[in-house]
Amino acid sequence: MTEARSEEAGRIRAAIVGAGTIGRSMALLFAAAGHPVSLYDPDATQRANAPDLIGRSLTDLASFGLLEQKASEVLSRIRCSSSVEDAVSEAEFIHECGPEKREVKRAIFEQLDSCASAEAIIASASSAMSISSFAGHLSISSRCLIAHPANPPFLLRVIELVPAPFTSDETLQKARLILEGVGLRTILVRKEIEGFVFNRLQGAVLREAYCLVRDGVVSVEEIDQLVRDGLGLRWSVVGPFETVDLNTVGGIEEHARRLGPAYARMGAERGQNDPWTSDLVEEVVAQRRAALPIVDWPARVAWRDRQIMAALAGRSRPSKTQVEDVS
Amino acid sequence: MTEARSEEAGRIRAAIVGAGTIGRSMALLFAAAGHPVSLYDPDATQRANAPDLIGRSLTDLASFGLLEQKASEVLSRIRCSSSVEDAVSEAEFIHECGPEKREVKRAIFEQLDSCASAEAIIASASSAMSISSFAGHLSISSRCLIAHPANPPFLLRVIELVPAPFTSDETLQKARLILEGVGLRTILVRKEIEGFVFNRLQGAVLREAYCLVRDGVVSVEEIDQLVRDGLGLRWSVVGPFETVDLNTVGGIEEHARRLGPAYARMGAERGQNDPWTSDLVEEVVAQRRAALPIVDWPARVAWRDRQIMAALAGRSRPSKTQVEDVS
Repeated sequence: MTEARSEEAGRIRAAIVGAGTIGRSMALLFAAAGHPVSLYDPDATQRANAPDLIGRSLTDLASFGLLEQKASEVLSRIRCSSSVEDAVSEAEFIHECGPEKREVKRAIFEQLDSCASAEAIIASASSAMSISSFAGHLSISSRCLIAHPANPPFLLRVIELVPAPFTSDETLQKARLILEGVGLRTILVRKEIEGFVFNRLQGAVLREAYCLVRDGVVSVEEIDQLVRDGLGLRWSVVGPFETVDLNTVGGIEEHARRLGPAYARMGAERGQNDPWTSDLVEEVVAQRRAALPIVDWPARVAWRDRQIMAALAGRSRPSKTQVEDVS
Repeated sequence: MTEARSEEAGRIRAAIVGAGTIGRSMALLFAAAGHPVSLYDPDATQRANAPDLIGRSLTDLASFGLLEQKASEVLSRIRCSSSVEDAVSEAEFIHECGPEKREVKRAIFEQLDSCASAEAIIASASSAMSISSFAGHLSISSRCLIAHPANPPFLLRVIELVPAPFTSDETLQKARLILEGVGLRTILVRKEIEGFVFNRLQGAVLREAYCLVRDGVVSVEEIDQLVRDGLGLRWSVVGPFETVDLNTVGGIEEHARRLGPAYARMGAERGQNDPWTSDLVEEVVAQRRAALPIVDWPARVAWRDRQIMAALAGRSRPSKTQVEDVS
């Protein structure tokens, strides 16, 4: 009895507005973490298809040993609602996962302004637009922020939190706790820049990739191959800063000294002039050395190699159910 | 007997000049593919340590089920040489893996000009400098090209081939066959641009990442986390073009239409103005649709998800030998 009650106490009533890929994925995450979820979409077909599509993802997860409960149990926690009011009225955490259109998001937030409960945290999954640009005028604004997940959120377990100046600290801290609680690593984006961090980095790669195709240097498929088996595989183990920190004896300080000028020339060819000044490099070096003292560098290189091996070993293993492969 | 002879016939005598991380890794790959390797380094300590270090990588590979032969067998194919002449005199494929300094590479190539056999393919592992910039004046030049592996080459199975205008087609084709034969996917870089493709893409990410830290948007570790669990994990399964092709209903054509302007604004903030013109987008769309007809798009999205699951499952599995983790 006590256990049941305390379990009950830890539950967050979540409402997801929008049953597309992102919304279904967020519903899956909350439900898998044991929370009751109401899922709304204005499109009746989207609503009707959602449980089946979420069920397929759950079955896939189970076949890779990534789900420690029954798919049906998880699904039973998700309820589809046919109105926003019904979906959100009792929710403590509302995640707007609608189309990436400012007018649409503004309209949804205006609706939430009148029907969300007085304590609810209200997040938008916008991938590039600031919350200031569509929710600043509302009475709920101090409880609003961006919570931008990666696609698909149930597999890429990171989410950017982007508060506006009007977002309260309490809102940010609650959102962080709730989202970390469903298994997402939260990244605080401290300024409301377009594209946040995720899409800034993605955009940088895409712009360069388009230039290389435009200039006849490589094909689309060759770039994709080079990233899949090279840069991407390594970045899935160590991020871009740690990558170059581990690639150069002497760490990132030595990397910036040796290769900074070449990267600056490549940037200048594209019009970019953002020098790695000595102050900036010093700051980056300080953060890296705090994360990894240079004395641990050789062991970390060996660790990186073994992590890449684990990923390669994972690639070659089929799931328990033999699923058709279209590649 | 016949089998032994035909096996013998398929062997390539390889010489690796430089026994640092890249050189040792290339030696491992050639030896693991059954080829006899001579490994040279001017530093006697590097030479002396190489077999032990290669042995450790082989043991790690075996512990992840990624080596289908005995480490000792592989090692027995590698011979350390104390002179360049001795290392390369009988080699059919020579891979220069020395320091990334033009004068050093020029000096090594001048030495190879006088001691390489008349048929040998002579590749440099330079990560950013063209072969034209240090080998164009030599009598061996038509047999020279860049073969830039990713670090570490024995795990990231891609290699950029960058010929100069003076590189013969035969050289390029032979190099491609030999390197594909040791398990590397070759990517042809059609123009001798600084940084080639790999480091152009890496540079684009690093420059943006440094800007974001400079501007106080996120920390070094936050960027690394966001990439590891988000962008990088996805890019290890689908490259940057396929990523956005699969992220948007309607494919990359719709992605460029909807998000191109936002990426252009983010680029312009960094000084970059490389518009995704309709011609360029059309070309990229045509290549993607040839690789993946739109009718197969939903199945490919499901495949992508399962591949990410396989990577996640791999991450959580320890190797057979419990190795200390310094993370």
